[in-house]
Amino acid sequence: MDTPRFEPQDPAFAERVRASFARQGAMHTIGATLATVEPGRVVIELPWQQALTQQHGFLHAGMVAAALDSACGYAASSLMPADAGVLTIEYKINLLAPAQGERFRMEGVVVKPGRTISVTEGRAYALHEGREKLIATMGATMMTIAGREGIKH
Amino acid sequence: MDTPRFEPQDPAFAERVRASFARQGAMHTIGATLATVEPGRVVIELPWQQALTQQHGFLHAGMVAAALDSACGYAASSLMPADAGVLTIEYKINLLAPAQGERFRMEGVVVKPGRTISVTEGRAYALHEGREKLIATMGATMMTIAGREGIKH
Amino acid sequence: MDTPRFEPQDPAFAERVRASFARQGAMHTIGATLATVEPGRVVIELPWQQALTQQHGFLHAGMVAAALDSACGYAASSLMPADAGVLTIEYKINLLAPAQGERFRMEGVVVKPGRTISVTEGRAYALHEGREKLIATMGATMMTIAGREGIKH
Amino acid sequence: MDTPRFEPQDPAFAERVRASFARQGAMHTIGATLATVEPGRVVIELPWQQALTQQHGFLHAGMVAAALDSACGYAASSLMPADAGVLTIEYKINLLAPAQGERFRMEGVVVKPGRTISVTEGRAYALHEGREKLIATMGATMMTIAGREGIKH
Repeated sequence: MDTPRFEPQDPAFAERVRASFARQGAMHTIGATLATVEPGRVVIELPWQQALTQQHGFLHAGMVAAALDSACGYAASSLMPADAGVLTIEYKINLLAPAQGERFRMEGVVVKPGRTISVTEGRAYALHEGREKLIATMGATMMTIAGREGIKH
Repeated sequence: MDTPRFEPQDPAFAERVRASFARQGAMHTIGATLATVEPGRVVIELPWQQALTQQHGFLHAGMVAAALDSACGYAASSLMPADAGVLTIEYKINLLAPAQGERFRMEGVVVKPGRTISVTEGRAYALHEGREKLIATMGATMMTIAGREGIKH
Repeated sequence: MDTPRFEPQDPAFAERVRASFARQGAMHTIGATLATVEPGRVVIELPWQQALTQQHGFLHAGMVAAALDSACGYAASSLMPADAGVLTIEYKINLLAPAQGERFRMEGVVVKPGRTISVTEGRAYALHEGREKLIATMGATMMTIAGREGIKH
Repeated sequence: MDTPRFEPQDPAFAERVRASFARQGAMHTIGATLATVEPGRVVIELPWQQALTQQHGFLHAGMVAAALDSACGYAASSLMPADAGVLTIEYKINLLAPAQGERFRMEGVVVKPGRTISVTEGRAYALHEGREKLIATMGATMMTIAGREGIKH
């Protein structure tokens, strides 16, 4: 995807994103790791696991969506102030092909950052027998949460 | 939600849905169970687990979405012919409130069944301290897959 | 649709909604009228017109969406404070059937009102040869805008 | 946007798309014209008109959506067989900024073509005082309709 260049407000954005990601039980459970954290762009990777399959043995779409939502959320978060948290208001996902592969890469980018609302897009790719294939696209709306202790980061 | 009444084409739809659900590694991993299987309406339940949390200790939105997507998919599947499989083309989810609670209930209903395309809606509820709260709404488009062995059910 | 009951904050909500609707050139152009304005629920009606068709002579989906978006936006607006404006952040529409008919009815309801973000749902119906048919469903996210003169109402 | 290169199945795709567009009453009414028709990519342009405004004098989001939906639909159609028609199953639109400007440009591209289902993305831009601004993004799912006379093209 085209990635517009954005200036982060928080110079420590990458450490903040990595610390928040480390607190997500669900991302740990599905074996996801943070591969890239740039201003307005985050990449998450995860391997195939039997425990995460749907009925045909492919990665469950819900797991694709969970990792893609996280990539989009952290992409938005990377451009937010240091004390802000991020919440997903909504997302839409198109599943283009079964999530068949050994590894998966989810990329989230900010299309338009905003003080309250940030709009992001995501793409999920499957790495299967040496080839990478686009398997899902996402459009997600994120909200900046400031000053609420329970929702921080 | 209003649930229009639909006639199933396959008298054994409930057994078919239950057998398919049992093959989903991901649903087993997140502790989800099939509570209700009616023509055009499926309810999935799951308990809170530390392993499925986001960074604030609430259930990860991706897990809410995964279970809700399954509820919508099986609702569509319940009205399909015996030899058909179901694939999610796309869904959109609005997250209305944090998934805070001891248990969660995801309900999927068919709005319009079709030979190729079925349109469904889902609602997720959190049961927290004795009260049930609407936490997410979904709109999902499902596709009937016929005659492809790998994608059956 | 189920319509939860909501208390309006602004006792003059209906006059405010009707005055704002009257300022919409586009609604006038497509012949739309406000049929119902209740707290959290708005119905808009419009007749078929040759000028609004797509290539098969049905009402253009964009016109269905425009009227449905307005119904959802005003449903959200009806629950907002007197000095607030409403903006559509995003919506998703599923087109269930061609918009074939003599008249159309678009209903928007609030699923969850909020200080900043309100989530709404819409349904569009075609009246054709004496029967009403569901032709589209919408999920829309609305934002409350306060204190910006240019965006008022 | 990145535009992957696709091979059209129908060498006369551009004439077919232009002929279909010419039959859309709604596109004529809103003053839209077809600026570009390439395999998998279509651009539609329209001027601002008082008759198409919302309550603040900006172009109504429904008109932005109508033209963007058409751009996405014709982008999908350009890759379909000669005798196929196209129907929008669903789309989601994020409205990033008010549609303020003298002219508007809507671009639709195919992300993944398919025999039955094609996935597209759209972007709408406003030209205002000599600068172009991204005002909306769309994700749309299109369906190929074959052999139904009433829905041709």
